[in-house]
Amino acid sequence: MSFAANNRSYNPPARPIAVLCIDGCADEYISASIAAGKMPRTEAMVRKGYRGMVRGALPSFTNVNNSAIVTGMPPAVTGICGNFFLNPETGEEVMMNGPEFRRCGTLLTAAADAGRKVAFITAKEKLRTVLGDGIVERGGIVFSSEKVNEAKKETHGVDDAESIIGKPRPEIYSGDASVYVLEAGAALVEQGKADFLYLSLTDFMQHKYAPEAPESLEFYGQLDEQIGRLLDAGCIVAATADHGMNAKNKADGSPNVIYVETLLKETFGDNLRVICPITDPYVVHHGALGSLVMVHLEDASKTEEIADFLIRQDGITEVYNREMSALKLELAPDRIGDLTVLCGRDYVVGKTPEHHDLSVLKGGLRSHGGRYEEMVPLLLSEPLNAEYVRKAQGDPRNFDVFDFACNASN
Amino acid sequence: MSFAANNRSYNPPARPIAVLCIDGCADEYISASIAAGKMPRTEAMVRKGYRGMVRGALPSFTNVNNSAIVTGMPPAVTGICGNFFLNPETGEEVMMNGPEFRRCGTLLTAAADAGRKVAFITAKEKLRTVLGDGIVERGGIVFSSEKVNEAKKETHGVDDAESIIGKPRPEIYSGDASVYVLEAGAALVEQGKADFLYLSLTDFMQHKYAPEAPESLEFYGQLDEQIGRLLDAGCIVAATADHGMNAKNKADGSPNVIYVETLLKETFGDNLRVICPITDPYVVHHGALGSLVMVHLEDASKTEEIADFLIRQDGITEVYNREMSALKLELAPDRIGDLTVLCGRDYVVGKTPEHHDLSVLKGGLRSHGGRYEEMVPLLLSEPLNAEYVRKAQGDPRNFDVFDFACNASN
Repeated sequence: MSFAANNRSYNPPARPIAVLCIDGCADEYISASIAAGKMPRTEAMVRKGYRGMVRGALPSFTNVNNSAIVTGMPPAVTGICGNFFLNPETGEEVMMNGPEFRRCGTLLTAAADAGRKVAFITAKEKLRTVLGDGIVERGGIVFSSEKVNEAKKETHGVDDAESIIGKPRPEIYSGDASVYVLEAGAALVEQGKADFLYLSLTDFMQHKYAPEAPESLEFYGQLDEQIGRLLDAGCIVAATADHGMNAKNKADGSPNVIYVETLLKETFGDNLRVICPITDPYVVHHGALGSLVMVHLEDASKTEEIADFLIRQDGITEVYNREMSALKLELAPDRIGDLTVLCGRDYVVGKTPEHHDLSVLKGGLRSHGGRYEEMVPLLLSEPLNAEYVRKAQGDPRNFDVFDFACNASN
Repeated sequence: MSFAANNRSYNPPARPIAVLCIDGCADEYISASIAAGKMPRTEAMVRKGYRGMVRGALPSFTNVNNSAIVTGMPPAVTGICGNFFLNPETGEEVMMNGPEFRRCGTLLTAAADAGRKVAFITAKEKLRTVLGDGIVERGGIVFSSEKVNEAKKETHGVDDAESIIGKPRPEIYSGDASVYVLEAGAALVEQGKADFLYLSLTDFMQHKYAPEAPESLEFYGQLDEQIGRLLDAGCIVAATADHGMNAKNKADGSPNVIYVETLLKETFGDNLRVICPITDPYVVHHGALGSLVMVHLEDASKTEEIADFLIRQDGITEVYNREMSALKLELAPDRIGDLTVLCGRDYVVGKTPEHHDLSVLKGGLRSHGGRYEEMVPLLLSEPLNAEYVRKAQGDPRNFDVFDFACNASN
């Protein structure tokens, strides 16, 4: 049965549909893993179906793009422009860890209303709480691998999830936390408990390992096995990523950081604040260092002067004032800073040296958030119809992934 | 024997080295062709060696990036910032079709001076004339497949090139024009006539066909055969691209063009001129429509006002004044406009409707020149040593390809 959400229409076939967000999956991970022979099922899947590139939303962060994917809308509409924002009314830094920060409904509840058996499985608990609202009330299932042991019928739509999956809760700082999400999805489809799934992984492995690292290849091999299980269970499989991932280190291996608040305060005084909207409870991944920060100024008259100062710094690649951030980066003007600051492929921007604990970054920093983590893969198990061949050749977005999964092969 | 060029050092092993510039080769072409089983030699090559992404120079045009590749330097140093520029002294639009426009020497002549048997084979004659200077004088070979029949010992370093290759001159508007370049390279290595090769193809096929089109897969299969020949002849093979390629059409299939000169003259009057630096004699490829143009203003006081007007247009993504173009796009300030204007993934920017002949664009427009054609693949037949593993994880450039070919596997 077809349904609509946020003025977009979805006409999914009756067979099960599994949409995967492979967190931090730069296209190089797919290429390297296929080249190493680690993804035979995915390789065969895209040979029959489709593999191409889609443009994610900026900032190229997890919550921003997961919010876009489950709504089909850019951050300007969802209002989710980072994990953190500075509430202009209170002056407080607020973690957007509940659905009340989101400004539109999800297509997952619309699918459930249309009679689909929806399951939304995440690796990180934060995504469950931010995006899972309304699904359980409509008979669907929502849980995270991080807290799968807490899943209860009333709150998560399912009791005893671990025994359905046949495995105990994995460690959140692991590849298993992601593999488990796909295992859960496959088990739910195999057991007829779900037929419309959003499976959102964690980028712990991608933060830690480059595409050709043996650990990464092994991890993608495990994902491939579960993609195979989903295919064997009759699913249309569509996969994309929330963002890419790049190494962000100096030649000596230390993180290549521009401390924007420190830099600005030296020159312009203390009347400003930098927010790192990548900040989340999972700091081991990235030490709260990404490739985009927001600058909040007490004195708005300095905006253009500071923007000009920033863009002249080595490594800073783009600086937008609030109006231009809304216009060119599709951001919600009241959820961002006076300036949005992006940096190069091998740089991160931070607040102050004291604010970031670099000791958690074993083996160098890999991170995301900027322009060079914007383009991500789109994989689909079905060949595209003529209309979607054309769409794929335009400027398709990662938040079109449900559109492609539901509509591209009819 | 090691050598230096433009303050970079190259320490190539004695075995033959073949560097390929696969014109217009967005990474998707490699992925699609490998997925379709059309590039078995390349697939095996990168499994043993390396495949990753490198950043090209902007504008993402052919001459700009070929100039960067053969010098190891960005456009700020080479001075080649497009195919055309407006000479500020004469007010004339000048095609940079000779070596006198380039501001530094090539590493090809340095390699020849160090005793290497250099061969520089191009598909397009324009590249031979722009970048091939000094090689024949040092005993090397330079010719284009477009005019291979004109090759003479005194001017091209070789007589009767067609019989060395064993095939007659191909049609320039064809995939064969590129395949022929690789055939020529392979023949020269096999016959001991060259051991340090730069083989630069044409993007006729990529302008015409998307990565998964049967014609494209067939073409990449032919390239793969010749890559196999180069490997069989004992070459270190390194391949990159000058730029990527994206479709640039509206939903109805017509080219998605913003006519910048028309737009600006409507609002700001006639005192300005737009230069399309993609313009070259090969207009069938793209109708002189790319994703970057230069705006020249007679009245410099309007610069910021016009920049602000432009950046507010749908599809325009970046606008830089001359100073910022030099600082952030690595361009030579006297070879560019007052404003550098870039557009989105599925847009091109043009001059006026009269200036562009869209009738040459059969089957829709695919083009390049902007930010979304900046990232290109780097393929290498050898595994990277520890130093180059680290380099590859930084912000490697396509104009580091000779560095990788010579130095990465020692």
